Amino acid sequence: MAIGRSKVVVVGTGAVGAAVAFDIVRNHVCDDLILIDINKEKAWAEATDLQHSLGYSGSKMRIKDGEYDECSDADIVVIAAALPYITGQTRLDMIEKAAGIMNNIVPKVMESGFSGIFIVITNPVDVMSYYVHKLSGISANKVIGTGTALDSARLRYHLADVMNVDPQSVHALCMGEHGDSQIIPWSQITVGGKKFLDIINDNKVRLEGFNINTVTEDIKKIAYRIVNAKGATTFGIAATTVQIIRAVLNDENKVIPVSAMLNGEYDEEKIYIGVPAVLNSQGVKELVEYHLSDDEMVELKKSISIIKEYNEKLN
Amino acid sequence: MAIGRSKVVVVGTGAVGAAVAFDIVRNHVCDDLILIDINKEKAWAEATDLQHSLGYSGSKMRIKDGEYDECSDADIVVIAAALPYITGQTRLDMIEKAAGIMNNIVPKVMESGFSGIFIVITNPVDVMSYYVHKLSGISANKVIGTGTALDSARLRYHLADVMNVDPQSVHALCMGEHGDSQIIPWSQITVGGKKFLDIINDNKVRLEGFNINTVTEDIKKIAYRIVNAKGATTFGIAATTVQIIRAVLNDENKVIPVSAMLNGEYDEEKIYIGVPAVLNSQGVKELVEYHLSDDEMVELKKSISIIKEYNEKLN
Amino acid sequence: MAIGRSKVVVVGTGAVGAAVAFDIVRNHVCDDLILIDINKEKAWAEATDLQHSLGYSGSKMRIKDGEYDECSDADIVVIAAALPYITGQTRLDMIEKAAGIMNNIVPKVMESGFSGIFIVITNPVDVMSYYVHKLSGISANKVIGTGTALDSARLRYHLADVMNVDPQSVHALCMGEHGDSQIIPWSQITVGGKKFLDIINDNKVRLEGFNINTVTEDIKKIAYRIVNAKGATTFGIAATTVQIIRAVLNDENKVIPVSAMLNGEYDEEKIYIGVPAVLNSQGVKELVEYHLSDDEMVELKKSISIIKEYNEKLN
Amino acid sequence: MAIGRSKVVVVGTGAVGAAVAFDIVRNHVCDDLILIDINKEKAWAEATDLQHSLGYSGSKMRIKDGEYDECSDADIVVIAAALPYITGQTRLDMIEKAAGIMNNIVPKVMESGFSGIFIVITNPVDVMSYYVHKLSGISANKVIGTGTALDSARLRYHLADVMNVDPQSVHALCMGEHGDSQIIPWSQITVGGKKFLDIINDNKVRLEGFNINTVTEDIKKIAYRIVNAKGATTFGIAATTVQIIRAVLNDENKVIPVSAMLNGEYDEEKIYIGVPAVLNSQGVKELVEYHLSDDEMVELKKSISIIKEYNEKLN
Repeated sequence: MAIGRSKVVVVGTGAVGAAVAFDIVRNHVCDDLILIDINKEKAWAEATDLQHSLGYSGSKMRIKDGEYDECSDADIVVIAAALPYITGQTRLDMIEKAAGIMNNIVPKVMESGFSGIFIVITNPVDVMSYYVHKLSGISANKVIGTGTALDSARLRYHLADVMNVDPQSVHALCMGEHGDSQIIPWSQITVGGKKFLDIINDNKVRLEGFNINTVTEDIKKIAYRIVNAKGATTFGIAATTVQIIRAVLNDENKVIPVSAMLNGEYDEEKIYIGVPAVLNSQGVKELVEYHLSDDEMVELKKSISIIKEYNEKLN
Repeated sequence: MAIGRSKVVVVGTGAVGAAVAFDIVRNHVCDDLILIDINKEKAWAEATDLQHSLGYSGSKMRIKDGEYDECSDADIVVIAAALPYITGQTRLDMIEKAAGIMNNIVPKVMESGFSGIFIVITNPVDVMSYYVHKLSGISANKVIGTGTALDSARLRYHLADVMNVDPQSVHALCMGEHGDSQIIPWSQITVGGKKFLDIINDNKVRLEGFNINTVTEDIKKIAYRIVNAKGATTFGIAATTVQIIRAVLNDENKVIPVSAMLNGEYDEEKIYIGVPAVLNSQGVKELVEYHLSDDEMVELKKSISIIKEYNEKLN
Repeated sequence: MAIGRSKVVVVGTGAVGAAVAFDIVRNHVCDDLILIDINKEKAWAEATDLQHSLGYSGSKMRIKDGEYDECSDADIVVIAAALPYITGQTRLDMIEKAAGIMNNIVPKVMESGFSGIFIVITNPVDVMSYYVHKLSGISANKVIGTGTALDSARLRYHLADVMNVDPQSVHALCMGEHGDSQIIPWSQITVGGKKFLDIINDNKVRLEGFNINTVTEDIKKIAYRIVNAKGATTFGIAATTVQIIRAVLNDENKVIPVSAMLNGEYDEEKIYIGVPAVLNSQGVKELVEYHLSDDEMVELKKSISIIKEYNEKLN
Repeated sequence: MAIGRSKVVVVGTGAVGAAVAFDIVRNHVCDDLILIDINKEKAWAEATDLQHSLGYSGSKMRIKDGEYDECSDADIVVIAAALPYITGQTRLDMIEKAAGIMNNIVPKVMESGFSGIFIVITNPVDVMSYYVHKLSGISANKVIGTGTALDSARLRYHLADVMNVDPQSVHALCMGEHGDSQIIPWSQITVGGKKFLDIINDNKVRLEGFNINTVTEDIKKIAYRIVNAKGATTFGIAATTVQIIRAVLNDENKVIPVSAMLNGEYDEEKIYIGVPAVLNSQGVKELVEYHLSDDEMVELKKSISIIKEYNEKLN
């Protein structure tokens, strides 16, 4: 029996958090939505604007700005707080500042008695997800980073466009760090169920000009251009995060590439990194471990070692 | 037979236009979406970010930044271009600047050969909708202002909250100017099909503290506080606009309060103002003319006269 | 917090129960669906056929045939078991047979420890809903009959068609017995928020030929013709029932006309009859009591007296 | 520009056609729905019952019973007319009777001036799809049989259940005849993007008892048991057909296994058989030709030869 109300808290109502909240509301993803921000008037304004978007719809969703003690009975807390990039800062500076934000948020969430699932968006997301897991003491399956889920969405959209099929007929993903060392495991990609490497071989004329390396680079770089032009990427990450929230709240057992804790997969452990995972109401139910090609494995290991280094520095 | 692709163009990709576009995409409201902005890189960035939001969905919607000539076969052009409010400027200054924006946009849309429906969001929306009608030469039924649709959404949400029913069980609306002279025709409001004035009489204890005049003022004022805190109202107007777009694209014959041209209703004509209208693929199919109370009629006439004055000054 | 699985049991997998189940599945209304029928192979076949309908969808809904003990943790039990009409049988014969079916079903449901909400479809639904309330000992707010909800859907569709607006822009309903004595409270009906009686007055030419009495009769009689041609009405009642299930499972506080227990409304009590009710996770949260016209009140009282007589005979 | 109304005609309102129609209506798949049946009162009753299901929804869909001349501007005609199985009849008898039904329907559709897309459900569907293509003279891409789409749905549901993931995370399909000679190309199946044959190897304990041959047989046989218990399979085929209709009406470029004309794939031509196809507004845009294993190819060839034999006998 489950008559009850599902509850999501979004911490951080900047451009990303607000877009996530809007997507949650317009898709009626949960029953209760709480917005928390250091700037309380901003959280109130976003919540109120979202309430008005419900005026013509049939749902009796409840939306409000709130405080950390309201996390106590939340199913999910989304950490969308972000720090503005400052030109010239090093990667390590950035990690330390992000960790500082987590230090401000996570203990307050835990003090409420929260026992649900964290979804971490804040970058560098693989390092921060691991840090939230450690800081909160919540078991690893219940801390999920958005990881390469957005990169994978970009890749799916791109391959769907190239092949002129719908994105759901494409199985494609990015793995590894959500960042410069991420990899595309081309050996695992299919379109319409057909191995994409076979498609490339069978369609030399049609796919003339298609270059695997160029695509890999473009997927990595496109976020920078968007951020330059509009200040942040918002809609892609919002849709991606809602996809993860839904898999959890609806107990979907859906396979999505997210930043999750390795536990023996690819002979690695105690590291969060982008891998396909089965998501349900327990968070990460299990990981799907691919049989990667030798080259792909080398690249993945390289990406893992980069993240590990950051994790250690943070400690 | 209708296999074809529906097409919406959004002009202006500021906070409002971008939110409208996101809501269009996430609800798959149309097949082709074109974003136009003076800042072309901004339009590109919003379009690309929106494309990424499609990566996990099944729709083969096409989204891109574009030029005015792409309005030629559009079903709908949404004018979401807005001008920042400058402290101390008079209402008339504001109208003239908004008209200047329309002068930049509307002729370019018309040169494309556009013969679809305009949806005007730019404030002051009643004056601007009339101006777009005159400027474009497009028949009045095909120029729709968002008018009091958002105010009505706010009122519906509020009454639903007060009575603890869902917003779809509330029939409520604001009429007149989308602005300080707007009115709430309380005699026409029902909750669960029961006249709200009867509900007030029958529930004196439960509704203690509920005051019609306070609600009227609150609905008018709430936008100011939101704008102060987040710079604009975005999500409410986005959901409202998508509701209107849907009614048109899906030929719904849905009754929504919008800014539409009076043609004898309430003994007025040649003025755009917020009234309930039946919307379908022809735009405004017809208006619903209420039997207002005497007091309500006086207030509505006052609101009409204010808009008329602005219309004349603009001429 | 509400991560959990919502559960609906449908008892009776004849044409009506199967259509209800299909509509539940295709709209992902709940997480677990159990079908129970005397003919166990039929229940298995319907459940399995429904499972196959999930093959292309993203939901991890679970559907199976089952036994009464699986009602123990159900949120809702729908009683869709029906008895074939036998020519020449009296109304009282019919009531006694329907009560016999309830005698077979309800005690088994209660023995499971069920503490959720009954939705009764079996006719004569007003008499049977009251009987299920008495037989089960479950509080009246938790036993809901489909009542005049389907008749109201027919009326809404008809008026939407006549006025060429969408059904959601029509507020209309039937009250009283789901049967020959039902009434249409014309004084309460609005289209686009305008009183329908005013619309009739203002549109004499357009509505020439529209006759209130004819509509009232047609709404009552149309089910007979459908039943003659296809053996049962199935799709209308399925959509109506799903509407009620959703209001309960999603805690919607939606106003729907259903068969509910009067408790002082219209100076009556201890009778189930079709009236508008606010439905949420508690079942019937409250009734909406209209200010009916004198004529409408006389008719409603007549309908109430007819149901009362049947209730007494059944005792 | 595409403001217009999409139109689907369903010919045959038996259990299958009615279920298809209900699923079309409840998902608002098209704007106009016409039902045609030899028994006109049955078509009227189904259409009217379906109209009532719209009473609480916002769509202004139009549903009615009709005549063949109303196919003239239809986007899609679904042939759902079925003949009851008579014990003891040979396969060839069955084919000849089905062809007789097509002879009654197809010329009448074509006389209307129809130039849209046929979706054929009537069994034996591979033979009948080819026959409708020949009889109508409509190009092969515009005649689609439901083929192994339903078998594939069953397989997806089953593997999702076995692996405890959602069906959309499973890529699986049946190919060849919709019937006893169909094959499952196990080498092409993935779950969560991982080759299923690798999953079997990597999970020997967990998948103990899972047997490829048993699954293949079960998928083939399950329809018989359902038909025995409820007279027909209805809900699975309805959802499958609506999936195909949507891909066409929404121009989705979605990959679905359907009965389509081979044109060189697997070195075969002039035969309709179950293969994955990209479906859009042109019907079958292209086929996806897999690199099957040698064993799978032998089986597929066998299935093709069986269908060819029937095609020839029918000529």
